[in-house]
This record gives sequence, structure tokens and C-alpha cells, in this order.
Amino acid sequence: MNGVTATLLISCPDRQGLVAKIANFIYSNGGNIIHADQHTDFSANLFLTRVEWQLEGFNLNREVIAPAFSAIAKPIDANWQLHFSDTVPRIAIWVSKQDHCLLDLLWRQKAKEIRAEIPLIISNHTKLQSIAEQFNIDFHHIPITKETKLEQEAKQLELLEKYQINLVVLAKYMQILSPEFVDRFSSIINIHHSFLPAFAGANPYQRAYDRGVKIIGATAHYVTADLDEGPIIEQDVVRVSHRDNAKDLIRKGKDLERMVLARAVRSHLQNRVLVYDNRTVVFA
Amino acid sequence: MNGVTATLLISCPDRQGLVAKIANFIYSNGGNIIHADQHTDFSANLFLTRVEWQLEGFNLNREVIAPAFSAIAKPIDANWQLHFSDTVPRIAIWVSKQDHCLLDLLWRQKAKEIRAEIPLIISNHTKLQSIAEQFNIDFHHIPITKETKLEQEAKQLELLEKYQINLVVLAKYMQILSPEFVDRFSSIINIHHSFLPAFAGANPYQRAYDRGVKIIGATAHYVTADLDEGPIIEQDVVRVSHRDNAKDLIRKGKDLERMVLARAVRSHLQNRVLVYDNRTVVFA
Amino acid sequence: MNGVTATLLISCPDRQGLVAKIANFIYSNGGNIIHADQHTDFSANLFLTRVEWQLEGFNLNREVIAPAFSAIAKPIDANWQLHFSDTVPRIAIWVSKQDHCLLDLLWRQKAKEIRAEIPLIISNHTKLQSIAEQFNIDFHHIPITKETKLEQEAKQLELLEKYQINLVVLAKYMQILSPEFVDRFSSIINIHHSFLPAFAGANPYQRAYDRGVKIIGATAHYVTADLDEGPIIEQDVVRVSHRDNAKDLIRKGKDLERMVLARAVRSHLQNRVLVYDNRTVVFA
Amino acid sequence: MNGVTATLLISCPDRQGLVAKIANFIYSNGGNIIHADQHTDFSANLFLTRVEWQLEGFNLNREVIAPAFSAIAKPIDANWQLHFSDTVPRIAIWVSKQDHCLLDLLWRQKAKEIRAEIPLIISNHTKLQSIAEQFNIDFHHIPITKETKLEQEAKQLELLEKYQINLVVLAKYMQILSPEFVDRFSSIINIHHSFLPAFAGANPYQRAYDRGVKIIGATAHYVTADLDEGPIIEQDVVRVSHRDNAKDLIRKGKDLERMVLARAVRSHLQNRVLVYDNRTVVFA
Repeated sequence: MNGVTATLLISCPDRQGLVAKIANFIYSNGGNIIHADQHTDFSANLFLTRVEWQLEGFNLNREVIAPAFSAIAKPIDANWQLHFSDTVPRIAIWVSKQDHCLLDLLWRQKAKEIRAEIPLIISNHTKLQSIAEQFNIDFHHIPITKETKLEQEAKQLELLEKYQINLVVLAKYMQILSPEFVDRFSSIINIHHSFLPAFAGANPYQRAYDRGVKIIGATAHYVTADLDEGPIIEQDVVRVSHRDNAKDLIRKGKDLERMVLARAVRSHLQNRVLVYDNRTVVFA
Repeated sequence: MNGVTATLLISCPDRQGLVAKIANFIYSNGGNIIHADQHTDFSANLFLTRVEWQLEGFNLNREVIAPAFSAIAKPIDANWQLHFSDTVPRIAIWVSKQDHCLLDLLWRQKAKEIRAEIPLIISNHTKLQSIAEQFNIDFHHIPITKETKLEQEAKQLELLEKYQINLVVLAKYMQILSPEFVDRFSSIINIHHSFLPAFAGANPYQRAYDRGVKIIGATAHYVTADLDEGPIIEQDVVRVSHRDNAKDLIRKGKDLERMVLARAVRSHLQNRVLVYDNRTVVFA
Repeated sequence: MNGVTATLLISCPDRQGLVAKIANFIYSNGGNIIHADQHTDFSANLFLTRVEWQLEGFNLNREVIAPAFSAIAKPIDANWQLHFSDTVPRIAIWVSKQDHCLLDLLWRQKAKEIRAEIPLIISNHTKLQSIAEQFNIDFHHIPITKETKLEQEAKQLELLEKYQINLVVLAKYMQILSPEFVDRFSSIINIHHSFLPAFAGANPYQRAYDRGVKIIGATAHYVTADLDEGPIIEQDVVRVSHRDNAKDLIRKGKDLERMVLARAVRSHLQNRVLVYDNRTVVFA
Repeated sequence: MNGVTATLLISCPDRQGLVAKIANFIYSNGGNIIHADQHTDFSANLFLTRVEWQLEGFNLNREVIAPAFSAIAKPIDANWQLHFSDTVPRIAIWVSKQDHCLLDLLWRQKAKEIRAEIPLIISNHTKLQSIAEQFNIDFHHIPITKETKLEQEAKQLELLEKYQINLVVLAKYMQILSPEFVDRFSSIINIHHSFLPAFAGANPYQRAYDRGVKIIGATAHYVTADLDEGPIIEQDVVRVSHRDNAKDLIRKGKDLERMVLARAVRSHLQNRVLVYDNRTVVFA
């Protein structure tokens, strides 16, 4: 399967004929569907779907697809997004001092596992500046204190705008964003170093050690105003034993963190994630 | 979500408009789709789908659905099956001497995790007869030797017919079925006590121990004429260590076997499994 | 390896020569060690070990081993337990209405995966009485209300004494034991239907569903006065998706619960679990 | 826990008093054991152990430990190795064209997860030369053809000697070593991109796809003269579905490969791996 595709992510109140309506829209315009997945949340009475089709041979020009589909979307009260596979999203990676998630994402981007441009790295420290240089990526050092936070967040927002960033990935950024920031820029994925909701907040590995758990985890989620409470995209775990001290948990956790974050970012970039009611559908 | 549903499992050569055609068939007859999943295998140029909709309010009587759909299926060269959720499939469980898979299936059936009737247990031994009695299920002891195999298989086929069996589950039956048998009755799920294709054939746990593997597995698959070569439905694994001898592998494997077999049987009974090219699509 | 063995579980402040002292005690009396595992918790400055040796050929009579070892244990300030492999512990299983953990434990006991007698089932409901009868186990119905709790717990303690119970397994008992009870009888294993410390307390599956987690878990732990805060023995997890509603989580969780509980009970019965500082060492 | 430690890895026929003998040797010379783990393989009648103790305060000089211990080892017919924790092993990484395992090992070495020097990279291609340069590691391009194999292996052996290499890691080297080579240099870890013994040999991912497996794996093992038949150190798996084509399997496999290889190399470097009868004990 090659060629450019269009993808619709749609959620709307459940009712008869939704699959038909959407499929007909694509078929009647000459499109060939290559992926269609649908989920009904009966408790929320919500219909959620992802449809992807080949643009080659499609009778509508790109610019016309959205207006044409909105005629279908309105009567069914749908929230929807339209994406084209040749749009390359632009990511800003935010880090503090740890390099494992950053390097992992950069490697995956080079290996084409993640289809995106990464023109910007922001950090509250300078420790990882050399990595940015090595990969030829602009690096901005924006230290944060309680006093300067709002002011520095303004700078950060400016940078996101200047670099036309579509997605911020907090790759162990270790700073809390203000509700105001999240309100202004909402496409943010964070990796939390615990199996949420266990050990939300600071020092999860030490607390996991103190609790004597036999398994640790990592969680990738969208960032909302409530710390560590955003919609979960992906989680994974690894077994630990009494042999593992807090340092071992940190080491084992690093492998988890980069896997889980990478999977979440990849799903997001492939337009497979739909958010509703503080939860996600991740279409396979 | 309640009420009776109909499910179509369809595979056909990929071409434009398939999703629309199928959805329209249901919508135009007043059906409400509650599950639709689709997969395209580009290397095989095959479109595969599962669609489930509520019969309440559907304008076609049950008897008419199949003939009506075949008008759509023919021009697209489709293989298809139609199932109704209130049809309760009838299972025969075949066992030898081990009880763990049998008991597990019986428990799940009682707990309504598995929606089926289990009117028949066949065994080449008598060891598990008391379980059959306890659960009030007919038990037939059909010992097998090389010499009597074909003759005994004829008896088995008779029983399957007499009890109107839809699915045979080999729950550690430990006997190879003849190609003739498989040709006559093809809906058979087997649990193999290894991570196929590793350790196909006899004594997989001992051989896994001898090889010094660090993980063992179990595989549920449809039975074909080629031993242990049928389409895989489900697999799972568990970690082992040098502490585990061959007996420990057997013990750990038992838990795997019953989980894996139960998941495969459940998927099959929910009409989620489509077979093509000796592989399966298991719709989520 | 056959024959009766003795097992010492020892914890004491770390210092030189501990392994030698203990090994010498066994060797000088003609014992053959078949399992020796040791762990040092450097942050707690604690030495923890499990040593198992064959009694055949051992020069000390059983009755003499404990007094003889206490001469070694005292100067090193050791906490220790001595167990003989031919002692068959007696378990009381406490249940409410769900049967999956109960049946699983009973099956494992029959299959000799768990070496214990199970002479007593206690329940606050009568629903599972027939299972007790079927397995020929005494069943006591002890309903609990806020008002009758202490009084009923007195009855329960009497039963534990009468049946000479060594271990209580809360196999989905769904009732909180009073601190007084736990103080009087401390060898209690509970299965909690979440990945603790996530979703401690009531309704973990519904809360897991509401939070939109991608993985659910189960936790077996010793019961202490603090609800769901006791030392964790074993945990495991299973992946869930947006397709799984709260009922599916309960169904998937049942498989987890019985596996996790069975592994914890087995480790406990094999004298592999050492508790310190509200955590466990589970010797492999 | 700090300071230099000594580690003994010992295997010998099982008999009474082995733990005591070894512990006494250390204790009587003033050593403090910080890790002692033991395993008895009853079917092979073999005792296997790992003992690690602090050198600070130990009465024997390093040079004297081996001769002193050999007096104990001889009468019990022991195979044994002695290692000091401040010896930094020297690794040569061999690669072909894929960079993921190489980069992962280099990152772990920098992050001190792997304690070793990596002075040498050998490849039959030049594609990864720039990585070697970036990390300041000598790179030798040694192309291999059927005709030149033995001659080129001679060069490789020379390099191993020249660089005083202790361990060769085949990080997706994709070439088979001759039995003569393995005979001359035996400390070699390979990562095989399948769950051995399934899909030994070439193109495991394509064959896994063709077989329709639901789980794929990776295996790290010591290299022996028999291709893909050496002692397994570590394995892990990941779930795949019908959505995953052969390319997806390769992508998912990459993550497995680097994790599994890294864990195996780490266990080896920590002197936790004992080989016997083509199997390994990996002391936790």
C-alpha cells in the first residue's frame, strides 16, 4: 500500500447509519478505504471511528474534503479531524537532564519509525544541549523558577508558534505546566514514570520501592490542567524483585519510559488516538 | 447494549466501495451497527471484515438476511458467514487424562464467559468420566489404537452428528486426528503446549527444558491435516528460569494452556475469527 | 530430589560470616543443602536468607534442631522460622459470592500444586456452600454487619482455632477485617483486584475503567491493620483496551486474580516469603 | 554498598558441605559476602553457585585468592572463575548495517548501565562507520565473502588480540562465524531475531509472519559452532496481530532485540551467567 491517504477521526452520538454515511461519502467520491475501525461506547452513547482512504483517484480536491464532510458532520453532531498522510507534523521535545527518551525519539525519527520533523528542543537545563547540536536541532535553554514560570512559559509559547509546532513531547521534562499554558497549547504528550494512577506526583520510583511493589510501570498521557490526570494513551510494566533497589527501578524504568513514550507518540502521529471523557480510543 | 445481533464475517478481493456496500445493506434495512472492524491484507489483496448489528428494528426477517446478502456477496466474490447471537453453539470437549483445560472451560461456561452448550465429552481414557458426571454431561469413552483409529473416528463422527456439535475443542486430547477426520469435520480448536512453531510434536516441555529456553508458551490453533501447522488463534507465554525443571514447566504451562485455549474458544464463539491462507484475523 | 527437608528463613542485621555460620550449622550436623538463597538489603542493613536441606542423614533430631539453632541465632540477633516439608499446613478459605479463586485453589490442591489441607471454608453468604459440599469441606456461614462484626469475628477466631488453621486465604472475601482480628491471627493472604497501590479500596475495576487505564492488575498481599497496605507478595497485569468495558475488566481480572493468588499462596506454603519493613522477599 | 568485590562462579558435582566450604573460605579470610546464590540441578547432579564478597578487609591479596581457592576447588572437582569488580572488560561490537543494537549498547555504556570499555567496532559494511567516529571508537571494515571468510576471520582474531577484547557482541552482525573461529575465541554473545528455537536461521520475521504467529521474540545466546544452538541467556517477546505485516514485525522486533541483548550483556558482565550442558544459570 503506497500513496497519500486521508484520515478522518470522528466521534458523535450513536445512531443508525453512521458507518454507511461515512463510507458512502468516501465511496461516492471514488475513494478506496484502507483502514476503517469503529467503536461504540454504549455507556456514553458515543460512536467513534477512524477511516483512512487513498487520495489517488479520489474525486474531491484536498481543500474541498473538509467543507464537503462538514455537511455530513453537522446533522450528526460530530466532532471530527481530517489529516493527510503527507503532512509532516512538527514536534518540540522538552527535556530536563535525562537523555534516554530524547535520544530514543531522535533515533526513531531518523529510522522513520516516527514520521515528523523535530526542529526544536527546549530545556530548563543545558545538559542536553550537545545532543541537540549533534542532531542539528535548535536548542533553547529556558530555566524555570516559581517566580519566572509564567513569564518563561510565554517565551515557550512564542517558540512553539515561531517553529510552527504541532505537538509537544515532554520527554522527562520534570516540570509542571501551568493550566494557562495547557489552555493555550493543548497537544502535549507526557511520559510519567509510574503506572498511573499509582504514584502520581514526584519520586514515583522511590515510592514504588518503599511500597514494595513487584511490578513497575510507565504511562504516556496527554497533559491536562490536572497533574498526571490526563487521558492515558499507553502504559507498560516490568517485573521487579527484592533484588532491585530504587536505583534498579530507575534503570529498568528508563527502558519502559522510552518504549511507552515512543508508542504513544507514534499512535498520535498516525492519527490513531481519539480523546473523549478524559479517556482515549487508540485505533489499532 | 442488549438484544439479539447478527454478525457477518466476510473476506473478498480488495476493491473500492466494500465498506459502503456492506454498511448500506445493513443501514438501508434499518439495522444499527454496533461493531465494525475491517482489515486489508495488501500482500494478499484481500479485504476482511466483521460487522455486527442489532436485529431489533431490522427490516429483514432472519431467514431472508442470507439470501439478501448473497446478492451483494456474489459480485464481489466474497466468502462469508452469517451468525445470530442467540444461536447457542454446541461444543464437544475431547480430553485424555489431564483435567485443567476441561474444568476451566466448564467453569467459564457456567460463569457465562463462554456462551455455548457442552453436551458431550469424548475421551480415550476413563479418568475424567467423573467430571462429566458431576457436570451432567454425556461422556463417551473411545479408546484409540493405531489399528482401531479409523473405525473409532467413525464413531466419533457419529457422536458429533448425533449431538449436533458445532465445535470440537481438543482440551489436551493428546491424539492426532486423521486427515480424513479433519476433512469431514473441520471446526476443531486444539491447545498445543508450546509456543509454536517451536517444539511442535511430542513432549514440548521436556524439549523446552532440554533446550534451556527462558520463556515457554502455549498455542491455540485450528486443526488441519498437518499436525501443529493449523492457523494460530492465540498464543501466550510465561517466563521460566534455571530453577524450573521439566515438571515446573508442565505446571506453569497448565495455567498458560487454559488461558490461551479459553481465549481462543471465546473469540471463535463470538465469531471474531476469520481464517485465510493458514492464518487468522482475530477481530478485537 | 526426594525426602523430607528442613527450611530456615532467617533475617538479621548484616555482618561478616553469616552465610558461613548457617552453612556450618547444617554441614557440621551432616545436612545436605539443596537450596540456599540470600539477600542483603543495604539500606536496611539487613541480611535475609532461606536455606533448605535434606533431613535424611542429618544428625540432629527434629525436636533438637530449633534449640540447637537458637544458640546460633541469638548472638546474631536473628528472627527465624524453621519448617519441615512434611508438615502439611491447614488453610481456611474465606469467600463471599465469587467462586473463581476458591475453585482454582481447590483444584490446585487436588492437583498437588498446593501442598496443604483445606478443612474449612467461611463465608458471609451461602452461595458457595454447594462447592464446599462437593469438595467435602466444612462450610460455616457467618454473616457480617457493622453491628455484629466483632462478635462474628470472635466466632471466626474460634473456628480457626478449632480447625487448627495455619493460614487464612481471603479468596474474594470482600469484607474488611478489624485490626483486633488481624492482631489475633496474622497469617492472612488477601487478593486485591487491582494493581496496588492504584485503586485501593472498593470498586477497583469500575474506577480503573473510569480512569481509562490501558492495563489492569491484581495484587496478593498479607493482611495488616491498614486496609490494602500490607506487604505485597505477588502482582500481575493484563492489557485492556477501549473495547473493554467495566464488565470486561472484571472478567479479565478474574483470571489475574486466581493466578496471582495461587502463586502467592504457593510461595507462602513453600516457605519462600520473608516479611520485613512492610515488604517481602520472595526467594525464587 | 560500595568498594571493590570479588566474585566466584563455581560448578561442581553436588555433595554435602559445598556451601559451608565456600563460605568458610571467605569468612575465615575476613570477607563479607554481599551476594550468594546457589542452584542444584538434580538431574545433572550439579551444584552451581555465585558468591560475591567485599575485598575491603579481606586478608588475602588479590593474586593469592585464586591459588588459595584452587586448593578448595580441586578436591570437589570444581570448574570456577574468579572476577574482580574493578576489572573493566573490553568489548568488541560487531555489526552489519543495522544500528539499533549498537547505539543502544553505546548509550548504556555511557549511562553506566553496562560497565565495560568498547574500544573496537568491526563490520562487514561501512554504513555504521560514522557512529564509531562519533563515539571515538576504532572501526574496522572487514568484508566477508565465502572465499575470504577464513582469511578475514584471521584478521578479526588479530584485532581481538590487539585490542585485548574479552567479549564479542554480535549486535546484528548477520554473518555466521566458522567453527574454527568459535573454537579460538569463545566469549561471544549473539542476538537472534526470533524466539529460538522457533525460526532459527535466516529471515525469522518473514517466516514468523508467514506462519501467522501472534507473538514474536528475540533471543540472546552464546555462540557455539552450531548455528543458533548455543546456550540461551535471555529471551523476550512482544504481541503482534493481523494488523502487523512483516515490516511491522521487524520494527517491533528491533525494540525487543536491543532490550534482550542489553540484558544478556549486562548479566554476562556482572558475572551472573554460568554455562553448563548447553544451558545457562543466570543468577538474579
